[in-house]
Amino acid sequence: MQSDLEAFFNPRSVAVVGASARKASVGGVIFRNFLKPGFKGIAYPVNPRAADVLGVKSFERITAIPGPVDLAVLAIPAGIVPKIMLDCEAKQVKAVIVISGGFKETGPEGAYLEQQVVEIAKRSGIRVIGPNCVGIYDTNTSVDTTFLPSSRMGRPGKGYISFISQSGAFAAAFLDWTTMAGIGVSRVVSFGNKADVDEIEILKYFGKDPETKVVVEYMEGLNPSTGGRYLQVAREVTKTKPVIVVKSGRTARGSAAAASHTGALAGDARLYDFAFRQGGILTAQDFEEAFDQAKTLASQPPTQGNRILIVTDAGGAGVMTVDACAARGLAVPEPPEALRRELKAHLPGYCSTNNPVDLTGDTDAKRYQTTLELLLPTPHFDAAIVVVMMQIPLLDLDIVDRLLAISRKYKKPIVTCTAGGRFTQQAARKLEEVGIPALPSPARAARAMWALVEYGRIQRDAAKRSS
Amino acid sequence: MQSDLEAFFNPRSVAVVGASARKASVGGVIFRNFLKPGFKGIAYPVNPRAADVLGVKSFERITAIPGPVDLAVLAIPAGIVPKIMLDCEAKQVKAVIVISGGFKETGPEGAYLEQQVVEIAKRSGIRVIGPNCVGIYDTNTSVDTTFLPSSRMGRPGKGYISFISQSGAFAAAFLDWTTMAGIGVSRVVSFGNKADVDEIEILKYFGKDPETKVVVEYMEGLNPSTGGRYLQVAREVTKTKPVIVVKSGRTARGSAAAASHTGALAGDARLYDFAFRQGGILTAQDFEEAFDQAKTLASQPPTQGNRILIVTDAGGAGVMTVDACAARGLAVPEPPEALRRELKAHLPGYCSTNNPVDLTGDTDAKRYQTTLELLLPTPHFDAAIVVVMMQIPLLDLDIVDRLLAISRKYKKPIVTCTAGGRFTQQAARKLEEVGIPALPSPARAARAMWALVEYGRIQRDAAKRSS
Repeated sequence: MQSDLEAFFNPRSVAVVGASARKASVGGVIFRNFLKPGFKGIAYPVNPRAADVLGVKSFERITAIPGPVDLAVLAIPAGIVPKIMLDCEAKQVKAVIVISGGFKETGPEGAYLEQQVVEIAKRSGIRVIGPNCVGIYDTNTSVDTTFLPSSRMGRPGKGYISFISQSGAFAAAFLDWTTMAGIGVSRVVSFGNKADVDEIEILKYFGKDPETKVVVEYMEGLNPSTGGRYLQVAREVTKTKPVIVVKSGRTARGSAAAASHTGALAGDARLYDFAFRQGGILTAQDFEEAFDQAKTLASQPPTQGNRILIVTDAGGAGVMTVDACAARGLAVPEPPEALRRELKAHLPGYCSTNNPVDLTGDTDAKRYQTTLELLLPTPHFDAAIVVVMMQIPLLDLDIVDRLLAISRKYKKPIVTCTAGGRFTQQAARKLEEVGIPALPSPARAARAMWALVEYGRIQRDAAKRSS
Repeated sequence: MQSDLEAFFNPRSVAVVGASARKASVGGVIFRNFLKPGFKGIAYPVNPRAADVLGVKSFERITAIPGPVDLAVLAIPAGIVPKIMLDCEAKQVKAVIVISGGFKETGPEGAYLEQQVVEIAKRSGIRVIGPNCVGIYDTNTSVDTTFLPSSRMGRPGKGYISFISQSGAFAAAFLDWTTMAGIGVSRVVSFGNKADVDEIEILKYFGKDPETKVVVEYMEGLNPSTGGRYLQVAREVTKTKPVIVVKSGRTARGSAAAASHTGALAGDARLYDFAFRQGGILTAQDFEEAFDQAKTLASQPPTQGNRILIVTDAGGAGVMTVDACAARGLAVPEPPEALRRELKAHLPGYCSTNNPVDLTGDTDAKRYQTTLELLLPTPHFDAAIVVVMMQIPLLDLDIVDRLLAISRKYKKPIVTCTAGGRFTQQAARKLEEVGIPALPSPARAARAMWALVEYGRIQRDAAKRSS
């Protein structure tokens, strides 16, 4: 069963209406994106005022294109979009992304234009993303309708986090941030006014998408008439994939601001919290937290329980990590006496064999390995937060491979906490490249770990319901 | 009235006991630090096994040094520290930093050694920082007893944030982080076992120090017998300078971990919170929050009230900022109708003139300036959070100068929120270089703003008490 949305993410042919050779024009940037070697389909420029665009024969209208057109991307003034939609109907285009703004978000006249687009879409079966959106960025098929210059917005490489955003700005910030962080991305959709395709369909598509392992969604509000269906879909998707929602308008004042921003009521935060829990959805307070959770869930397995082992080279940071775990409802149990004795035999006398295990400032990476290999595989711990303050002289980058080997061998999640400057950033990047999340503070490390614990619980609950 | 501690921060002469030419030795690194051109005093190496160290004549004992010695830095095995302390007594050294570990923190034998150090200090009047510490990093006098390689730990430039740390690891992480962030630092003290000089004296010293504008302190616990005095000093210092405390062991489980780490009970979190409020102290949950607050308080004035204007180029980020403000008890009032009408006349029709003011994705820096100049100086707002998502094409780096001019002109604080990749980082750094804090999420921007609001309240309360 193929989804209607397939034509958006994997079109064999694309028409860019408004394509031009001008680098500064939206249509120009988007058409250039489709000429990059990654895109395997055919790209047609549609521009009545050009014979060719960047050496590619240009067409006066979509209907003049000889072959079939799966996807049309419209980067033209709002006023002529309905007319082009008629062409798309005639050409039997499957999917249209309307980048252009100037619709419902601008008042009654724009709303009327949008209504015309919806009518043509409904009667013809054309699926529409937008209007007023950034569209799609897909690392699997190289569909890229983002029009922001690469000097402003980075383009991340292939990964397994997919992002659904009601806000084009957050989609752009997400792409930019993941690029810098070296975190791979799968498919990103900014759906704008959602005249036709909405977050529910996209979520459903990502739920079945083998290239998506974690879904992040930025939401301003659910439509009261479709909220129930959203949660039904979420409940299904979250059986196998974590879904993280950042919702704005959580407070009464924020909800009022959201209402004036989107025209829709953001609603009662407690209602949403309840609904999200029902749907097995993880919630994040803001995008920093959502990104932390996403990279963690994309790279480490969910836990079987909430008992966290903490290993540190700095006592104070260990204590702060305990505080942060406790604040998130994570347990930090002491190792049983026999295990502590065994560990003591392997560590210098001044190291603490409590939890946190404090390896002290003269530790090397080997001491971490010894400790983790002794404690993490035992039934007493479900996961480890490893604090690596990299300023100390004997702790080297071989910590990366050692932690990687342990996380692979024992299949229990490891999250690291590391704070500091350039060398720390280098270590953090190397850790994340091999799939070990590196968070810059105990609070954020505990929050990331919480996501693994919570998603483990969600999956077990779902399995119980099904059995 | 000169403080006893002056000899630590501004010594005319320093003896480094354990100085050597070996780059890997602690004494070697520290002696090298004192040879750097920044240090204006005389540095003597003390090493009986060398005729000279790096071309400087070496002395067998401190007592053999011809001139007076203000400060001795000891980087030698714990066992011989008492003997060297006797030399310091004979030489009438004013201050000693004992870097070496192997004292109270290792058990009864070490505690006995530490007791001997304390006795000599008490009878001779020598002031001691340490043992078991990183010591001092001072950008004003270039006193630098940190021994971590610069490849691991950066050395920040001159600024006005001073840091008091019970943990050497956090002192190192703080220096490393501020270096990377381009944030200036004044004086940093890691006081280790606090055999003599404790956080109270250092806090008092920083309170009177013209080079310190903000104090950050990492604390594991207060001594019950000195807690009252600490708060008295804090109450005095916080009249004129903000003091931010990060305390570990806030939760019951964290407190237990702290007890096993430091041997001292970290105590009841609510008691501490109450005491900190009494002392006018700002508290931070962890070091990321403390650093965010510190850089904000070091660069922007405290507010006169809690009414925050939010200006944004992305509606969703604006709403999230409202949420984050509300969660921190900050008000986000709407501009009065007359003011909105005036603003409307200056902005394109599709911009929202509510609070948040939404300048939308086609804004340039000028539009921000117009908005802020109209609204911020009015009596309706105490400060502004400016959300600048830098991915949009028309928003350029001239935003930096425009915001700077406004914050100078109207003397109301501005905090920015900007999230993304490389260009965003560049913008954030430029903003912070001119003293406009740039936070990477709405939650952190609101938290930073909260520190300015809260410290304003603390100062007004203190002024009321005094009058």
